[in-house]
Amino acid sequence: MNTIGTLFRFTDFGESHGPAIGGVIDGMPPGIDIDFDAINVELQRRRPGQSFVTTQRKEADEVEWLSGIFEGKTLGTPVAFIIRNTNARSEDYSNMADSYRPNHADYTYDAKYGIRDWRGGGRSSARETAARVVAGALARQVLAAKGIEIMAWTSRIGKISTDIVPASRDEVEASIVRCPDLGNSARMEKAIADARAERDSLGGIVSCVITGVPTGLGEPVFGKLQSMLASAMMSINAAKGFEYGDGFAASTMRGSRSIDPFVAEDGKIKTTSNHSGGIQGGISNGADINFNVAFKPIATMARPLPTVNRKGENIELTVTGRHDICVVPRAVPVVEAMAAIVILDALMLSGKM
Amino acid sequence: MNTIGTLFRFTDFGESHGPAIGGVIDGMPPGIDIDFDAINVELQRRRPGQSFVTTQRKEADEVEWLSGIFEGKTLGTPVAFIIRNTNARSEDYSNMADSYRPNHADYTYDAKYGIRDWRGGGRSSARETAARVVAGALARQVLAAKGIEIMAWTSRIGKISTDIVPASRDEVEASIVRCPDLGNSARMEKAIADARAERDSLGGIVSCVITGVPTGLGEPVFGKLQSMLASAMMSINAAKGFEYGDGFAASTMRGSRSIDPFVAEDGKIKTTSNHSGGIQGGISNGADINFNVAFKPIATMARPLPTVNRKGENIELTVTGRHDICVVPRAVPVVEAMAAIVILDALMLSGKM
Amino acid sequence: MNTIGTLFRFTDFGESHGPAIGGVIDGMPPGIDIDFDAINVELQRRRPGQSFVTTQRKEADEVEWLSGIFEGKTLGTPVAFIIRNTNARSEDYSNMADSYRPNHADYTYDAKYGIRDWRGGGRSSARETAARVVAGALARQVLAAKGIEIMAWTSRIGKISTDIVPASRDEVEASIVRCPDLGNSARMEKAIADARAERDSLGGIVSCVITGVPTGLGEPVFGKLQSMLASAMMSINAAKGFEYGDGFAASTMRGSRSIDPFVAEDGKIKTTSNHSGGIQGGISNGADINFNVAFKPIATMARPLPTVNRKGENIELTVTGRHDICVVPRAVPVVEAMAAIVILDALMLSGKM
Amino acid sequence: MNTIGTLFRFTDFGESHGPAIGGVIDGMPPGIDIDFDAINVELQRRRPGQSFVTTQRKEADEVEWLSGIFEGKTLGTPVAFIIRNTNARSEDYSNMADSYRPNHADYTYDAKYGIRDWRGGGRSSARETAARVVAGALARQVLAAKGIEIMAWTSRIGKISTDIVPASRDEVEASIVRCPDLGNSARMEKAIADARAERDSLGGIVSCVITGVPTGLGEPVFGKLQSMLASAMMSINAAKGFEYGDGFAASTMRGSRSIDPFVAEDGKIKTTSNHSGGIQGGISNGADINFNVAFKPIATMARPLPTVNRKGENIELTVTGRHDICVVPRAVPVVEAMAAIVILDALMLSGKM
Repeated sequence: MNTIGTLFRFTDFGESHGPAIGGVIDGMPPGIDIDFDAINVELQRRRPGQSFVTTQRKEADEVEWLSGIFEGKTLGTPVAFIIRNTNARSEDYSNMADSYRPNHADYTYDAKYGIRDWRGGGRSSARETAARVVAGALARQVLAAKGIEIMAWTSRIGKISTDIVPASRDEVEASIVRCPDLGNSARMEKAIADARAERDSLGGIVSCVITGVPTGLGEPVFGKLQSMLASAMMSINAAKGFEYGDGFAASTMRGSRSIDPFVAEDGKIKTTSNHSGGIQGGISNGADINFNVAFKPIATMARPLPTVNRKGENIELTVTGRHDICVVPRAVPVVEAMAAIVILDALMLSGKM
Repeated sequence: MNTIGTLFRFTDFGESHGPAIGGVIDGMPPGIDIDFDAINVELQRRRPGQSFVTTQRKEADEVEWLSGIFEGKTLGTPVAFIIRNTNARSEDYSNMADSYRPNHADYTYDAKYGIRDWRGGGRSSARETAARVVAGALARQVLAAKGIEIMAWTSRIGKISTDIVPASRDEVEASIVRCPDLGNSARMEKAIADARAERDSLGGIVSCVITGVPTGLGEPVFGKLQSMLASAMMSINAAKGFEYGDGFAASTMRGSRSIDPFVAEDGKIKTTSNHSGGIQGGISNGADINFNVAFKPIATMARPLPTVNRKGENIELTVTGRHDICVVPRAVPVVEAMAAIVILDALMLSGKM
Repeated sequence: MNTIGTLFRFTDFGESHGPAIGGVIDGMPPGIDIDFDAINVELQRRRPGQSFVTTQRKEADEVEWLSGIFEGKTLGTPVAFIIRNTNARSEDYSNMADSYRPNHADYTYDAKYGIRDWRGGGRSSARETAARVVAGALARQVLAAKGIEIMAWTSRIGKISTDIVPASRDEVEASIVRCPDLGNSARMEKAIADARAERDSLGGIVSCVITGVPTGLGEPVFGKLQSMLASAMMSINAAKGFEYGDGFAASTMRGSRSIDPFVAEDGKIKTTSNHSGGIQGGISNGADINFNVAFKPIATMARPLPTVNRKGENIELTVTGRHDICVVPRAVPVVEAMAAIVILDALMLSGKM
Repeated sequence: MNTIGTLFRFTDFGESHGPAIGGVIDGMPPGIDIDFDAINVELQRRRPGQSFVTTQRKEADEVEWLSGIFEGKTLGTPVAFIIRNTNARSEDYSNMADSYRPNHADYTYDAKYGIRDWRGGGRSSARETAARVVAGALARQVLAAKGIEIMAWTSRIGKISTDIVPASRDEVEASIVRCPDLGNSARMEKAIADARAERDSLGGIVSCVITGVPTGLGEPVFGKLQSMLASAMMSINAAKGFEYGDGFAASTMRGSRSIDPFVAEDGKIKTTSNHSGGIQGGISNGADINFNVAFKPIATMARPLPTVNRKGENIELTVTGRHDICVVPRAVPVVEAMAAIVILDALMLSGKM
């Protein structure tokens, strides 16, 4: 269950403080010239320590390629890669060995497996998402060659939100919180600084748009494209909600206000609005696909929290490891990666590759 | 891609105006005494024509069991069933043969397959959900024997919403819109009547709570329980969003306000609040699982809508078939059915059966 | 686990004495004009009561199509069909309710499920293969349009075997045992008549050749084309062995005698011999694919056999139902059907559709 | 398609002359104390250069564990591992870059992918089976704790065969060809020496028996235990055939000679013979499971062979790399590994873990 996809299959492994994290991509199309620099750019975007709004923990995040590539080109065979875990200060977590951090996976892993690697969250650590970013970056290179582009950004942090849709990734990257609305970006930074001062944390929303998607991706009934996207997005640590097109707002709307009329222009059929978010009946209609993913405030805060230990005693626990105040800016490349993985798989399933 | 599940696998088939819809349940546990009446009750709840708020189209919805059952007990072999399509007034849809209804699947099916059964939406019709209700009702009987109960209700229709959580299904069924808040239930009915008068339609939200779930359901990373639920819920016709626990509201909250402290009571560990919605790190923690599903207003309205035909000509289309003004009350049993299918599969995967 | 295939997925259901057997084909390519007569021809070939060498039990085997077909063409949506069980003389099997027939599935089903439909073997009856023949006949029509043809025949019954490869299906059908070698065909008929007289049964071998297969079908490692074929063939009732190319004989050969030299002719690369059986490294090489499937003598004989009952008492059991003396002639169309299902799935996976 | 299994899922990656081969085991039961020495013993058994009958190429085959293990115990999360490729003399293969070795995967990989790592066969090299041996050794440790043991041996090399079933693995390991029949073992060694002298190669058969298997493993129809075993065995390089129980010999037998009568002894039901090979109706019956796998003589011989190059020119090719004369002795641990992977998956699927 650590694999996602049907034809483009990504298997992800690793604990945050074990020897390495990594992945295997099975179904990678052959003959692709890999742009290794572009993959590193994505990893940099996800990496901790990018700016004052993220955790100061440093991770080198160097990818070692093990298979599936020959003279810089993909072979069509499984592409395996690892990222070594360095700078792992396990001692920061020693008081976690026998305690359950609230709103983390410590208790549920113990309940499920009877054992867990308590160092830094182990398998449940968001460090695992670095492997997703690598796989997503590979998928993206295949998609880009087909004219499909994916762009995500921060549209909310705490109480501050924006409706602005960026025109390019540069507009996203111009902000350290990855919000293309510069006024609100500054307010978001301040909100994070305030939360840090108060030893608190913040949630937010990542918005994403996918352009250039051909018609016909997705399947009726259980393989609907929105099902594939929702499953992938909800697998990201701290994600609490997914919506596409009009999303939750649609629940308050009248039908007459949410129609996307078809028009024919130059022999091509398209819609004049996009309440549908680019998907109708589970299948892409050629319009942009857009969706939002809600993230909770992270549960690790520099304050004592009431909880229990493995012996079943009620205790107070203060987690001292380095951590983010708000994961949303770093979640932006992870959302893009998961979108790329899903869309490439759907493209391959559609027979349009 | 018309199959959902890993160990409890449900394959769904059928067009709304073909000979029959139906399904095959592979992985049904053996030796279960099936309560056929309870299955019919669920089908009645989903059925059109229940009340003035739903379409007046009548469907007999009689289940014919084909396999997997011997002397009233499940055999462990695939349980196949069909529901004949009767009262199918195809002529209502004859102007759909060459036109694409806006916000429906007509265009995308044609784009994907180059052919479609245009009668009543064919495969994309919500009639297909009757088969899901049958499969869900079977799953539910297995879950009930394990102390797991699933209850959904209408928490929003258009602008009217409620926070009331029903104490029992009777409170839900007391309202024809399936809203346990009687004051708001009446307002919802009126909103539907108003929308009908104005030839419009309404969206809404279905809320669901699952009680009695043991710890340990769900898997790390891509098999997270929320991923399974999100995928299943987003596969329901007209669903636009999914959230669990604090959901989208979590994006506006601070971490200090969303902690679920663990406490030990009588040697049992539990949380004193449930911002997590019963799932932590992708795995059930023993608390109630709760989630919401947003539904858009349906796109079929008794008014002419601008669109195109297969020849690529811009036209106006008036769909004259019988249809709902608001699908939310009838979506309630479908949400429950999909939840039952997911939870039983997760239970079987967890090895706790 | 009653589903086979990845992109062309066939789910099979039904007990021999329940209401119906049937199947769902998910992934059927859209827009195919179905030749229903050709499907019936295949069912006739599998049907009992064709000649004196098969069981005299009659089955109408009429296919009822439920979904996925509109105006004679496939829609791309799941094709579901059923075959009613008529002429089911359950009383023939009443002494089986509490006894375990030797070398049948009675005991293992009870051990696995704690319950079984004892009438005629229920799910374990070879009647289930009729559904395979329908699915295979559909697959075959798609393959034929791509120039891929599948032909199987009887190459051994008991001690009598042949090396003759038929030039056409007519040569196969000219013999009631489906052996294209007329001299040996007559001897096989006599062997069956002798075994019947002695209340015994006979095994044999079905050989199969697939022509017109493009290069590139099958995957490295676990998805090898021979793995897919072996799995499918070993799923047929009474199959005990599978071999392709030189098969078991290869184990006795020297390498120098089993080389398939490549030659280039008119810019096309091919082999001058076919020890490989059309598959190299798990992937089709463009040569004919050929394989053999060994079938055991069936275990139902018109004589008392020592066994036990559910109470664990040692008894003698005489099964009085009608049955074949040798299943091999009727297994020929089943082998072809399974080959068609596998090859179409592999073709779709290869992206060559 | 480089993954095998449903609940115990093994994903295998790597080219023979790339940086590493390896695998990911998803579904490994938690809390298992791994015996690393036992895993190394298995790798030694598969390793080239063990004796004069195997290739003199040396491979260190040191396993590096990357994830899923904490303080020597499995975590229930994916177990990833790699084996570095050292001693890879790519220059031996330089004349293979543009040529297709007969009966190898060179041509089919090029036909499928348009690219291949020609060094030593790349992905198609049997070096990949080292990863299978690691995964199998882990599965075996879980099975051993349940009383399930797997033992394979060489029962044929070329014209020399034996019917002797070894009493223990020691009897197998006492022979460098892994044949427990010491007289025939010596003859097999001589046959290999002769073939080497004549620049030829030899095939053979590996036999395997699995003891301690509970009843109820395997599924009706497509998930039959023999289907799972056949698929796994046919995925091994050079395998040409699979049979279980009476196998191909059953095709020549009469039913009356192949009955396995049930008897009840001390309240336990068992068979007095085992023509069925431990599987009836696709499900284990509690008796020993036994099967044979036929291997062809390898196609690499120290002699020039006629073939073509990528340009489509007819040439003669002499492959100078080090290679085995007969792979059968080294295939013995691979057959055991694949059997362990299949049986553990079937055990987990049966709910008997």
